Amino acid sequence: MNSNPDYYVQGVLARDRRILAKTITLIESSLPAHQELARAILDQLMPATGNAVRLGVTGVPGAGKSTFIESLGLHLVKNDYNVAVLAVDPSSSRSGGSVLADKTRMERLSAAPKAYIRPSPSGGTLGGVARKTRETMLVCESAGFDAVVIETVGVGQSETTVASMVDFFLVLMIPGAGDEIQGIKKGILELADGVVVNKADGDNMVRARRAQQDYANALHLLRPATLTWTVPVLMCSALEMSGIDAVWESVLDFHKKMKSTGELDEKRREQALDWMWTLVDEGLKERFQANSDVKKLLPSITREVGHGTASPTAAANQLLACLDKNK
Amino acid sequence: MNSNPDYYVQGVLARDRRILAKTITLIESSLPAHQELARAILDQLMPATGNAVRLGVTGVPGAGKSTFIESLGLHLVKNDYNVAVLAVDPSSSRSGGSVLADKTRMERLSAAPKAYIRPSPSGGTLGGVARKTRETMLVCESAGFDAVVIETVGVGQSETTVASMVDFFLVLMIPGAGDEIQGIKKGILELADGVVVNKADGDNMVRARRAQQDYANALHLLRPATLTWTVPVLMCSALEMSGIDAVWESVLDFHKKMKSTGELDEKRREQALDWMWTLVDEGLKERFQANSDVKKLLPSITREVGHGTASPTAAANQLLACLDKNK
Repeated sequence: MNSNPDYYVQGVLARDRRILAKTITLIESSLPAHQELARAILDQLMPATGNAVRLGVTGVPGAGKSTFIESLGLHLVKNDYNVAVLAVDPSSSRSGGSVLADKTRMERLSAAPKAYIRPSPSGGTLGGVARKTRETMLVCESAGFDAVVIETVGVGQSETTVASMVDFFLVLMIPGAGDEIQGIKKGILELADGVVVNKADGDNMVRARRAQQDYANALHLLRPATLTWTVPVLMCSALEMSGIDAVWESVLDFHKKMKSTGELDEKRREQALDWMWTLVDEGLKERFQANSDVKKLLPSITREVGHGTASPTAAANQLLACLDKNK
Repeated sequence: MNSNPDYYVQGVLARDRRILAKTITLIESSLPAHQELARAILDQLMPATGNAVRLGVTGVPGAGKSTFIESLGLHLVKNDYNVAVLAVDPSSSRSGGSVLADKTRMERLSAAPKAYIRPSPSGGTLGGVARKTRETMLVCESAGFDAVVIETVGVGQSETTVASMVDFFLVLMIPGAGDEIQGIKKGILELADGVVVNKADGDNMVRARRAQQDYANALHLLRPATLTWTVPVLMCSALEMSGIDAVWESVLDFHKKMKSTGELDEKRREQALDWMWTLVDEGLKERFQANSDVKKLLPSITREVGHGTASPTAAANQLLACLDKNK
């Protein structure tokens, strides 16, 4: 393996697909040497990042996420975009069923020369998967992709995580009376920059319109994140490829408006800083939990707090005091 | 000042109001000696805590929170409850207008012998105010109060904070067409164990019923936190004291059901452990930011991350490396 960062940097900037794939593999590797090399590469690529429209897509199970992303991707390559599709799926290592593991699920898009599909990095915590996906997104941007689509499954905090790395977070829904609608995860509508009711075709049209109205009503009850943008509820049929163009128009409209007010730059700045602090917090916690005195004390003290015999404040103070002992 | 913990512990357990007030003052003090004494007291009181119904109340401005809490408090003392009313208001030090600073706002309730009203501790961050309120709640429980009501204003994260220390989180709304309804803060409905439309009286009745229906519809779209409980939307008039009894019945019903399934104990256990970890995280961050190398590096590195010239991962690694340097 080449250990010269320049080799990767030049290759990525020259849009060499093979070297791009190698670079992402380095980013996904957990070997310290690879991580160090990946950091050096990324540092050099940073000035070339930031030029893509970053789109996150989530949806309830059965909403047809992959068909939707394939249709959107095909629409984009037809309109001369270079599209990268990535996935955040912390469950992939457990269930064996990664969102994008099976590339054949997007057969037509994979065949398009202007598209690049990368499955979710396997293994690790959500934080680890998210870090890798975030950095893969940056590498793709520096390789000239001008649209990056990040797919996520609704597991744990994965939506919040994806929403915190994209410009526009799209929530895919399906028409359905009652039960299906109730399946929306808490907080998901509040993350949405746009809601799309998929499968609005054939016999579904009446139910799709009703779902559209229901979501519009629900969104109406939420205070908007910005006055620049009213979260739209659109309909489409990924299968029939209808309405996909309007979805993308909406994403572009958002981008243009948020850019003109400076809110887009501000959002990205905040996302980057939040991410830095998340990593710092994680690092601090790892170091804390590696402390031998903390390790010894933790089981008994969490038991006491759980039983209500120790106050959380006293317990926290006792745990933090372990750090001073070791100095 | 008496520096013997036993003096306070015995006084609180004997329900001595004067000593209770002194104990809370110690908890609110930022002097290290007071804090240490408060910790010792709290540790001894812990076994006597946990016997109250813990109710959190929030609401949009103008929802009539204090009138509602006073009416509810009067209903409770009439039914032989000992009621403590506390407040979390991180804005009180800035605006000078604490939620409960002006005790005369609850004149009738303050006059009731079975009620105890304590304004928000002034100054400090939300975390500091929350810590003090949380511990004041525990002290009140050990002093025999069997209902603790915690009021909050909708500032920043204060609702989430209050929701994380109570059994039942109640969101107070007002009837209103359009504008007022849109004022709901993001995420607030998802924290609610119950929604109450206040001011359902006189000319407001039609609008109150419509608001009730709107909120019921919106809640219907959220996945319930537990199958044991469906979040109700009730109506009341705090001014006319109508519907208050039904609100309390609902709180008790929740308590009974969640207790029988073991979910109430589990919720409290999780709240206590989450709180311990929040305090540990805060402590770790404080120590981190006090590191002299971190202090030196932080301004330039946050600037670089903000400008997109440094990746958040590289920045976080650089910052964490400061801790190793000092060893």
